[in-house]
Amino acid sequence: MPVMTAATTTDLDVSAYCNDLTRRAVAASRDLAATPGSARADALRRVAEHIRQSSDAIQAANAQDLAAGRDNGLSDAMLDRLKVDDARVLSIARSVDEIAEQTDPVGQIVEGRVLPNGVRLQKMRVPIGVVLIIFESRPNVTSDAAALCIKSGNATILRGGKEAMHSNQALGQCVQAGLRDAGVNPDAVQLVDTPERAVVGELLRKEGQIDLCIPRGGESLIRAVVEQAHIPVIKHYTGNCHVYVDANCDADMAESICVNAKTQRTGVCNAAETILFHKDAVATGLLKRVCAALAERGVEIRGDETTRGAFPDATPATDNDWRTEYLDKIVAVRVVDSLSDAVAHINTYGSKHTDAIVTSDVAAADAFVTGVDSGNVFVNCSTRFSDGGVYGLGAEIGISTDKLHARGPMGAADLTTYKWVARGDGQIRE
Amino acid sequence: MPVMTAATTTDLDVSAYCNDLTRRAVAASRDLAATPGSARADALRRVAEHIRQSSDAIQAANAQDLAAGRDNGLSDAMLDRLKVDDARVLSIARSVDEIAEQTDPVGQIVEGRVLPNGVRLQKMRVPIGVVLIIFESRPNVTSDAAALCIKSGNATILRGGKEAMHSNQALGQCVQAGLRDAGVNPDAVQLVDTPERAVVGELLRKEGQIDLCIPRGGESLIRAVVEQAHIPVIKHYTGNCHVYVDANCDADMAESICVNAKTQRTGVCNAAETILFHKDAVATGLLKRVCAALAERGVEIRGDETTRGAFPDATPATDNDWRTEYLDKIVAVRVVDSLSDAVAHINTYGSKHTDAIVTSDVAAADAFVTGVDSGNVFVNCSTRFSDGGVYGLGAEIGISTDKLHARGPMGAADLTTYKWVARGDGQIRE
Repeated sequence: MPVMTAATTTDLDVSAYCNDLTRRAVAASRDLAATPGSARADALRRVAEHIRQSSDAIQAANAQDLAAGRDNGLSDAMLDRLKVDDARVLSIARSVDEIAEQTDPVGQIVEGRVLPNGVRLQKMRVPIGVVLIIFESRPNVTSDAAALCIKSGNATILRGGKEAMHSNQALGQCVQAGLRDAGVNPDAVQLVDTPERAVVGELLRKEGQIDLCIPRGGESLIRAVVEQAHIPVIKHYTGNCHVYVDANCDADMAESICVNAKTQRTGVCNAAETILFHKDAVATGLLKRVCAALAERGVEIRGDETTRGAFPDATPATDNDWRTEYLDKIVAVRVVDSLSDAVAHINTYGSKHTDAIVTSDVAAADAFVTGVDSGNVFVNCSTRFSDGGVYGLGAEIGISTDKLHARGPMGAADLTTYKWVARGDGQIRE
Repeated sequence: MPVMTAATTTDLDVSAYCNDLTRRAVAASRDLAATPGSARADALRRVAEHIRQSSDAIQAANAQDLAAGRDNGLSDAMLDRLKVDDARVLSIARSVDEIAEQTDPVGQIVEGRVLPNGVRLQKMRVPIGVVLIIFESRPNVTSDAAALCIKSGNATILRGGKEAMHSNQALGQCVQAGLRDAGVNPDAVQLVDTPERAVVGELLRKEGQIDLCIPRGGESLIRAVVEQAHIPVIKHYTGNCHVYVDANCDADMAESICVNAKTQRTGVCNAAETILFHKDAVATGLLKRVCAALAERGVEIRGDETTRGAFPDATPATDNDWRTEYLDKIVAVRVVDSLSDAVAHINTYGSKHTDAIVTSDVAAADAFVTGVDSGNVFVNCSTRFSDGGVYGLGAEIGISTDKLHARGPMGAADLTTYKWVARGDGQIRE
């Protein structure tokens, strides 16, 4: 008779299951907060080694997921995202090793001073506590998220998509084995091992025990989490990114940045989705030149009336196009009367992710930087640079489109909070 | 016929009212983000001057609130908190002047570097946007909160308690007059001028327009806001603060810190509510000595069984006492077997506000600092020091008991977020 696990039991006691997960996570988070950085880094290196040594087991588990996915009619693109082969196993392990080598954010003194009364005050980075990560089908999120949480001293509860359940479990076993080898409480990383949806709702109500939820996936997943959550959520919504080509700019640079931002990789959140041109770019022919360069690379142009006048191959853009993250070889193009109209367009339709201006005018650059209310605002470079790795933050847990706590690429340091530590020798308040 | 204002209209169109407030606030926040720090400081100095010049008008408005409060049976303590006299007007104005003189947090570069591709990257502090502040009866919160938001470049919507409505309106007029004098959009600070409760619920659903809500008041107010909010809330819950007297410590220091933390001012959030003693303090007589010193100052001791054995005047403590913020001359006392039991008690019953250890043992101090999961963790000094002014942050909007974004005393800088600004000369991603 097979052992009944939570994943196969139909009458799961959701409340007891979640209480147990949470209780273990809170206890592990206390242990982790007192675990030195060297031990956390050691655990990560052992996790990477277990992943490499378990390549066959991981791929066998992944094959089960792929077979089920094909039976359930997953698209080729989804199956490709799900698939783990030799190269991907090595890449997953390498990513964990890289996180191990990052500077430890825990214990960093962000600021500090001696108060007039002699008390020594320090603002010190500490782990947040327990982080719940809810994600969709990419199995590498299991190890990346686990590694970033271990690095930052947080206990984590991972809830991956059911399409990747076997792959995630295999990777999760490697993570726990590495933690055990290093003498770290293996409850530091727990996987939800049941597809029961009520578990998610219950965990999202664990206020005061789970300190943060990060949902990684499509907009509908994030909205569903926000709707249910009683705990803080940091949201990673879509990247509806813009390039604004100013009246005064280098035409070659404008073409190069627009083409790169749109086409270097289309399926990513920091690719451009709308290009705004100052009206002068119509008369100079720059709009036509950039549109032609994009069309030549197979990009469909959806333009407003002025754009279509200058580039007749463009199809008509609707209001909906200004809001759309295509993630595809499509771009919306609009002509604006001024820089402030460009800024207003971006603040109205954008997703506060990454927006760039191409300009040779210092005042225009400064006005754009001040006016655009986005996490990443660029002057004369491609939107494709908004990335934790490029920024030097190391691996990222995502790119926050929120404004509080963390904005833009979130690395291990963004998974910490701080405490104020004051040390005196008997000071009292008069 | 009197002019019908929102405050006197019974059939208020809540949705239209809130849409108008929010639309104006968002527009003002864009203006403020582009307003230099010198203009914001100038506006604050003019606000302070208007407050001083309007002392009579403010006190006349306050008299209306006091009369209504007496009719409605407000307690003397509540009436005292509500009352504004000459001295309080001057103190309110001085506080605004002090905020004007603080360093401008907006535009500060938190970190920055040149990327290998030559792009210059900066992480720059910027205003959050629109902040909703919901508070109870103290009128000075109107000007303090407005001043901190102006300083940090945020538009704010203030919703005070209806007991202080006339006082708040009078102060609000001074704020808007000062903004106008300085050429700043007066919609930067708007007061909700209707007691209609549905307005609060509606504003709390303005996701993407109102960026943050800070409720200031009792726990029930905060819980009600959290229940309704679809926007981020930073919570300032109770201060259930602890002093732990370790096995090894200076007895005079232990007595002095316990007495100061409990009695220097009892009605404040950073006063101690529970004292934990290591069991060795029973045999040495230190527990008895500290309890006697507190009792001598009129403090009621509620102790566990061991405490009552050593200090028979103590009344029995129940589990509920460990959770209570007395804000009064009452203290709960418990004897623990070890430092780790003290830490566990604090993490179980505390409110993550401020907790102190008195010890002469370096290892104990370090273990306490690491183990206690609170915003402010102190060694050998009074809990009464956890305060934005004492920390050198200037005036504070409150003391956050949350872990995300801001923890402990929150000053103007905590009312900012950041954006990543990248400046290049044509860089694209290869």
